[in-house]
Amino acid sequence: MKAVVHVMLKQGVLDPQGEAVRHALGALGFKGIGAVRQGKVIELDLDRSDPEAARAEVTEMCERLLANTVIESYRIEIA
Amino acid sequence: MKAVVHVMLKQGVLDPQGEAVRHALGALGFKGIGAVRQGKVIELDLDRSDPEAARAEVTEMCERLLANTVIESYRIEIA
Repeated sequence: MKAVVHVMLKQGVLDPQGEAVRHALGALGFKGIGAVRQGKVIELDLDRSDPEAARAEVTEMCERLLANTVIESYRIEIA
Repeated sequence: MKAVVHVMLKQGVLDPQGEAVRHALGALGFKGIGAVRQGKVIELDLDRSDPEAARAEVTEMCERLLANTVIESYRIEIA
């Protein structure tokens, strides 16, 4: 079973990586680009067959390690 | 119009960040974790209304800046 976790900075938290990307795209000549946010995505192969158990386990992984929940939000997809 | 770009290391390219996450999860007591891959996700707000034009523009952004296509693959979602 595969889990995909998206971790993004929360709204209102300054995102210097995203700003750097936006600036670089403008410098390359791309126009009309508004906000850019950069986050991380983590793909995990889990030795689980129950989607609900997998989701619960990945939620715990996010809370304990994968996301800094003070400034980051996360979203889990189980496939 | 919003575009989401996923950039992952290609299969076969060593992923030390993913390995570090796998090791740390194991140290925290999580069992049965196979491969872990870490990539990045970039969300862009675009001043475009045509999805096909937006996709073409974001593809060019990926080729020129967002992904290192020697070692990384990318996937674009237009929403």
